[in-house]
Amino acid sequence: MSTPPVAVALDWGGTWIRVALINQQGEILWQTREANPKGRTREEYLNNAARMLTTAVQQACGPVAGIGAGVAGPVEPSRGTFHQPPNLMVLDGVSFKSLWENLFRVPVWVGNDANLAALGEHTFGSAKESAENGHPIKTLFYVTVSTGVGGGLVDKGSVFLGANGLTSEIGHTVVDTTTSALLCPCGQIGCLEAMASGTGIERITRAKISSGEASGSILESLDKNEISSEAVFDAAEKKDPLALSTVEIAVSALANGLTNVVHLLNPDMIVLGGGVTTGLVNLDLIRDIKKRMLNRIMSDLHKDFQLTAAKLGDSAGLVGAASLVWQKLEEEKP
Amino acid sequence: MSTPPVAVALDWGGTWIRVALINQQGEILWQTREANPKGRTREEYLNNAARMLTTAVQQACGPVAGIGAGVAGPVEPSRGTFHQPPNLMVLDGVSFKSLWENLFRVPVWVGNDANLAALGEHTFGSAKESAENGHPIKTLFYVTVSTGVGGGLVDKGSVFLGANGLTSEIGHTVVDTTTSALLCPCGQIGCLEAMASGTGIERITRAKISSGEASGSILESLDKNEISSEAVFDAAEKKDPLALSTVEIAVSALANGLTNVVHLLNPDMIVLGGGVTTGLVNLDLIRDIKKRMLNRIMSDLHKDFQLTAAKLGDSAGLVGAASLVWQKLEEEKP
Repeated sequence: MSTPPVAVALDWGGTWIRVALINQQGEILWQTREANPKGRTREEYLNNAARMLTTAVQQACGPVAGIGAGVAGPVEPSRGTFHQPPNLMVLDGVSFKSLWENLFRVPVWVGNDANLAALGEHTFGSAKESAENGHPIKTLFYVTVSTGVGGGLVDKGSVFLGANGLTSEIGHTVVDTTTSALLCPCGQIGCLEAMASGTGIERITRAKISSGEASGSILESLDKNEISSEAVFDAAEKKDPLALSTVEIAVSALANGLTNVVHLLNPDMIVLGGGVTTGLVNLDLIRDIKKRMLNRIMSDLHKDFQLTAAKLGDSAGLVGAASLVWQKLEEEKP
Repeated sequence: MSTPPVAVALDWGGTWIRVALINQQGEILWQTREANPKGRTREEYLNNAARMLTTAVQQACGPVAGIGAGVAGPVEPSRGTFHQPPNLMVLDGVSFKSLWENLFRVPVWVGNDANLAALGEHTFGSAKESAENGHPIKTLFYVTVSTGVGGGLVDKGSVFLGANGLTSEIGHTVVDTTTSALLCPCGQIGCLEAMASGTGIERITRAKISSGEASGSILESLDKNEISSEAVFDAAEKKDPLALSTVEIAVSALANGLTNVVHLLNPDMIVLGGGVTTGLVNLDLIRDIKKRMLNRIMSDLHKDFQLTAAKLGDSAGLVGAASLVWQKLEEEKP
């Protein structure tokens, strides 16, 4: 029997759950999303997901090849079991693979959302484009700079999982060892996430305002709850000094964290995704980050990489979840 | 024709060149070493190596399976071409594979020495021992803490090479972002190598003595040229405060650098090799490094790794070079 031409993809983040139907060319044929129910039980979360997956299967109007799911947090890849996901703690310990295979009678594969975004960008995004231009990519590192900072590594076409599927946590690598280093939500100080994530940018901005550093800033007039990373980037576009100094912290931290990644992983492509990246692109700061990296990188051969914004935008994880289905089915062919 | 039971292994470092005959159990059957000729031409270096390899082939008293070579510096893996090796610059651009395949008429594979030490520890060292004790290793990170600081990563039994074979350069990841961060030989500041390598330890000690910080230290009475990392570790064993404070810098830097490695690569085993490691073992500091790491690591699943000194000692690179031969021949089997 030939493989059905569509896969169901699911992207379960801390705020949204998205499902889609995606074909073997990585095209999204249909999609929907819902906010996670707030303060509900595990059963309600899971019923919600099952209902959305059922809708997707119905939309396919025929058999689906399988379900691929990217979930926000540490996940054991063989069983698709969540391990203490900080933003979806209600789902701790759930083994999605057996759960959904029993419900839907199709093969299910689960991965960390940033890992799968890396796979999506590799298979159908920036790396595909590069290959079409004559530069195939061997080793792609993806960074989502969003509410938090996560990462994913694809080498020779496959996600690098390490011992337990918990690789590429660039957000919790240390980029500030000074005594004034910022506290990270993970409990440590000096992590990249504390300086470059959306919440980090907001926290730094609020601290600057509280300390009186912000005199004359546009941001000072905002209500504390209105201070978002978007507001900071908007103000930076207007050359607001407070906003520029906050963005400088994020840019410098990203350049330092990514330099460590280059020395450890020798990627030929680094892809930046997530909402903060949109802000960086609007300020034309991607080139600036690369320039700072090149100033620090140890050898010419290490400098041989592309740095680019995600081509698939915020669908990288969803497309990557489908890529995982196509890849696994291909591997299983006799 | 069955595979001959011995491989020729070569380990070409900044100071020594070693060759050996190694069997499929990773046992060294015969070996020799010579210091690199000082200030000689590329031809003399290469003639020296060819002569030593010829001796090894003769010692085998029969066909050899191939030649595996670990070389100190960045090496392109398919051709075995050296790229600007800082400690063997005279050999820049040499393609060892075709050179020795033409000379010896056996297959040749070349890799970075720290990468191959990782492979040696995986195949015949610490990871083999762990597997025999019921804990097979998926992802091994090896660090040589020696004249410099290098690293190697083995995942699912193979060296992780990245785009250009230049991975695992932990020595040039940044572990100090303060304004007093030390200058590294690579030209950057705050690298792990500047704080934890043998030369780093020596440089820090000399600086402390020059600044008058060393009052009363055993090390103060030594001639400047006698200040080696070994002397510092000896003094630390005698509780010399200067030596202890220098060792503390190295220990703290290693713990921070390795914590970043854990978050990016999620290894289940980290192996420390090189001369400085011997000093750390003598002072029982490996456990201390692990304790500091566990205090910083973000999740329980990331904490699930072994930290150990190299079981193969300074033969890890040599044994790993032979492992590469056995692995490549196995891969090429029809």
